[in-house]
Amino acid sequence: MPLTIGLDFGTESVRAILVDTRTGAVRATAVERYADGVIDRTLPGSTDPLPSEWALQNPADWLTGLERAVAGVLRASDAAPAEIVGLGIDFTSCTVLPTDAAGRPLCGYGDLAGVPHAWPKLWKHHAAQPHADRVTAAAARRGEPWLARYGGRISSEWMLPKAWQIAEEAPAVYRRAAHVLEGGDWVAWQLTGVLTRNACGAGYKGLWHKSDGYPSRTFLAALDPALAGFYEEKATGPVVPPGRRVGRLTSAWAGRLGLPQQVVVGAAIIDAHAAVLGAGIADAGPLFLIMGTSTCHLMMSPREALVPGIAGVVEDGIAPGLHGYEAGQAAVGDILGWYVQEAAPAAVRDEAAGSGRSAHDVLSEQAARLAPGESGLVALDWWNGNRCTLMNADLSGLIVGLTLGTRPAHVYRALVEATAFGTRVIAEAFGEAGLAPTRLVAGGGLAQNPFVMQIYADVCGRRLEVAGSPQASALGAAMLGAVAARAAAGGHDCVSDAVRHMAPPAARVYEPLAEHRRPYDELYTIYRELYDVFGRRGDVMQRLRALR
Amino acid sequence: MPLTIGLDFGTESVRAILVDTRTGAVRATAVERYADGVIDRTLPGSTDPLPSEWALQNPADWLTGLERAVAGVLRASDAAPAEIVGLGIDFTSCTVLPTDAAGRPLCGYGDLAGVPHAWPKLWKHHAAQPHADRVTAAAARRGEPWLARYGGRISSEWMLPKAWQIAEEAPAVYRRAAHVLEGGDWVAWQLTGVLTRNACGAGYKGLWHKSDGYPSRTFLAALDPALAGFYEEKATGPVVPPGRRVGRLTSAWAGRLGLPQQVVVGAAIIDAHAAVLGAGIADAGPLFLIMGTSTCHLMMSPREALVPGIAGVVEDGIAPGLHGYEAGQAAVGDILGWYVQEAAPAAVRDEAAGSGRSAHDVLSEQAARLAPGESGLVALDWWNGNRCTLMNADLSGLIVGLTLGTRPAHVYRALVEATAFGTRVIAEAFGEAGLAPTRLVAGGGLAQNPFVMQIYADVCGRRLEVAGSPQASALGAAMLGAVAARAAAGGHDCVSDAVRHMAPPAARVYEPLAEHRRPYDELYTIYRELYDVFGRRGDVMQRLRALR
Repeated sequence: MPLTIGLDFGTESVRAILVDTRTGAVRATAVERYADGVIDRTLPGSTDPLPSEWALQNPADWLTGLERAVAGVLRASDAAPAEIVGLGIDFTSCTVLPTDAAGRPLCGYGDLAGVPHAWPKLWKHHAAQPHADRVTAAAARRGEPWLARYGGRISSEWMLPKAWQIAEEAPAVYRRAAHVLEGGDWVAWQLTGVLTRNACGAGYKGLWHKSDGYPSRTFLAALDPALAGFYEEKATGPVVPPGRRVGRLTSAWAGRLGLPQQVVVGAAIIDAHAAVLGAGIADAGPLFLIMGTSTCHLMMSPREALVPGIAGVVEDGIAPGLHGYEAGQAAVGDILGWYVQEAAPAAVRDEAAGSGRSAHDVLSEQAARLAPGESGLVALDWWNGNRCTLMNADLSGLIVGLTLGTRPAHVYRALVEATAFGTRVIAEAFGEAGLAPTRLVAGGGLAQNPFVMQIYADVCGRRLEVAGSPQASALGAAMLGAVAARAAAGGHDCVSDAVRHMAPPAARVYEPLAEHRRPYDELYTIYRELYDVFGRRGDVMQRLRALR
Repeated sequence: MPLTIGLDFGTESVRAILVDTRTGAVRATAVERYADGVIDRTLPGSTDPLPSEWALQNPADWLTGLERAVAGVLRASDAAPAEIVGLGIDFTSCTVLPTDAAGRPLCGYGDLAGVPHAWPKLWKHHAAQPHADRVTAAAARRGEPWLARYGGRISSEWMLPKAWQIAEEAPAVYRRAAHVLEGGDWVAWQLTGVLTRNACGAGYKGLWHKSDGYPSRTFLAALDPALAGFYEEKATGPVVPPGRRVGRLTSAWAGRLGLPQQVVVGAAIIDAHAAVLGAGIADAGPLFLIMGTSTCHLMMSPREALVPGIAGVVEDGIAPGLHGYEAGQAAVGDILGWYVQEAAPAAVRDEAAGSGRSAHDVLSEQAARLAPGESGLVALDWWNGNRCTLMNADLSGLIVGLTLGTRPAHVYRALVEATAFGTRVIAEAFGEAGLAPTRLVAGGGLAQNPFVMQIYADVCGRRLEVAGSPQASALGAAMLGAVAARAAAGGHDCVSDAVRHMAPPAARVYEPLAEHRRPYDELYTIYRELYDVFGRRGDVMQRLRALR
């Protein structure tokens, strides 16, 4: 029975799943936490505090973790190592590290172990914000054509700001770096001895474009002469679509994992994008929502279009031959978490404690009993700024309609509704660019909340499916391992085939309630008016932020 | 030593204070709770539930309470009854009752004791809202000139809607009522045997005007033929300024109170308006804020002006010869109470409990450490609609600027600031009508909070005095008793004299901090913009309310 392994490198741990390439049946799962976790206070073995906004990882944790996780799934299943044909990788992004020419992380050198810039920068390392702002400003000033593909704004989480921060703040580290690369590409390189760059990470986070390549040397030189050769010198390696065969396991890694050397490793993919495949989407049309602390919206199309307010379109970014689009809301579950922590009264906590439930459960249950509009509230869900469609981190949250009769469940429901309205705005933006989604599919932690899902179906006025796999990213990675192995070896010859065979059916389907259509259309009209008043026409939120 | 008694009839109790007419020194205080309190569930002796929004009182409680309270102050002091020269009354308003021709409350008749409409309707009886709306609509339609004096809107708390509700819902009670009158006027009538109407209640709550009198019979007939004769038949009795001598104690009441029969009783005044005098204001110019669950703003001027957005201007309404102006914010302390109850997280309650303080104390202390603008928030303080200057009960509260970093103290401070901005709008509205306040003086429970008071001084950019008397209404009533007695008898010949001699100096003075001026001017500019967007130009709040 041919099997494939998916390795899902997250923020705190790595997950391995062992999957049947014919049916998608999951034979075993194992999770290994990183020993050093997120390094945001001090480097391992040091007491020097890191500056604020820093977030690093230890590359040794990735390797130790994957080794143990693979051992775990082998142990937990009755699989014979010889049954395993492929191995796929998804990784948080943009998580980048500097290495020497052989791929050794610079933080592994004794003389650099105490230098923070020698360590991998985790996706949520936000200390390069000034560099990101300067990249954005310079690109805008020079009219760089690629800026529009990213909605006019470069994130501090991406490759170039992080690399520039190294170059500027630790020039010696930068000079010693032969490569600066994504963690997912580095793991694939380690396992196979072959350096590639996955088109997903390179496109969404590295400013790469299939036809145009990377930003020009002239642009980099204008930023900083020390950065001029960055792409030519330190970002080398062919860019390949996720799942493209990188190579076979090195003998060292085959031995370390107890796997045959013929196991094929596929090019990595970003974790969110892997979940699209794991959710059963391999073709153009469906809009996939990964709903957690924030929401990421992904869809594919054969066309490349610049969708106003949508950041990120990458050819081959998710599946070869298609343009992958990425949009997002900067805070979703985070808003509900904020509410419970900072604004839900003691009575809610008491009721939760008394009934052995979470505050979210209590509030969801109460809020589910309200009718649309009954709260009298509308909110703008910009607690962490607005990513799409306004691309403005200076925007903030708003609640209107508060009265002395406003109760916690009213507010909670209004906050959920606001995030649903935000998703409807994004779906409509795709539609206005001629890319109207054919289906809505949701995954992630928040997608498991029926109250939340029903509101999304009602607000969007359409059927909403919840992805069948609770570990869609890892499953997507496993699919890419199968694609890398090819059908002749027991895998699949293309991503569509892998998805068709390996994705489970929807876990649940929510139909919009007809009687909720009119009130939600009315509330959405109000939301859109406020969206324009505060997001486009006025500057109240910007002035309030400036006063802080 | 000449003494005067002030009787302060509140919602739950009556307070008596015994005051030296020369110095204002308080010799004794006594408070008596009403046995039946606020009657809002069932009538005394009945199990039939009252409809919602009903609130009644028992007139026997007023008399029993005043008798005991007067006995209380005599007992608690070493005053000889013969020293007492005057007695003044303040009362909640509009608290009205139907009586027979002799002044006997209709609810005192055995056959009517079970009829709710035979009982006094307390100020906060809101069941006549439909009648109020019909009065407003009819007056607007007919272009009644008096409507503008009330800001274009008649409150359900006032005399005419309450009387009309009786006429429509209990015509037999209405027909048997020889008089419908304010509780304060009824008490004065009981004590003296003389029926008068105080200009304060008649003007602010009864649609009376010194030159124009009451609304016309034609108007009443247009409302309802059964109501046509209301003012001519059931609202008789001369309208006199507060403090005007009504008469001396009847022998029965002199005996009941243990006071000499020559004690003079002054015409009543509304409790809020009594506090103006008790706070030391007898002349045109100062703006007085009574800050509690809501805020009432009172000032006097020799001129009668229609101030846009200010409801209520009454000649002789507070002090004879001056026009009293009344404005207000519908919720102030109520918003902070709502916040603590419905939106302050468990951590605040825990900290309060752990330190033996109230949640308000904890939040005030934390919020006081913030700089203006540091919260990044601005709120519109319309949790209970906007009374002045928009006169719109359909408006609602708004908070903008929320982020994942927003903490309870940020919100609490923003709410306090919002109510201060609302007061600044009112002060500026007076100024734009040529009635710029010369001073700001505050009284009431919230005025005892230094954190709140400093913000008011800073937001308004002016010195703010806190009234010296903690029982300013009762003191004002006592002053009116002294005025009724006149100087020859040991009282005073005019209100100014009484106030000058009897009001204590300010308890505390808050100076605006120069460094807070600019940030608060900026925040206020934002507040005014939102005020216009949501209160005047847009209708988002109205649509949200309609959806409820």
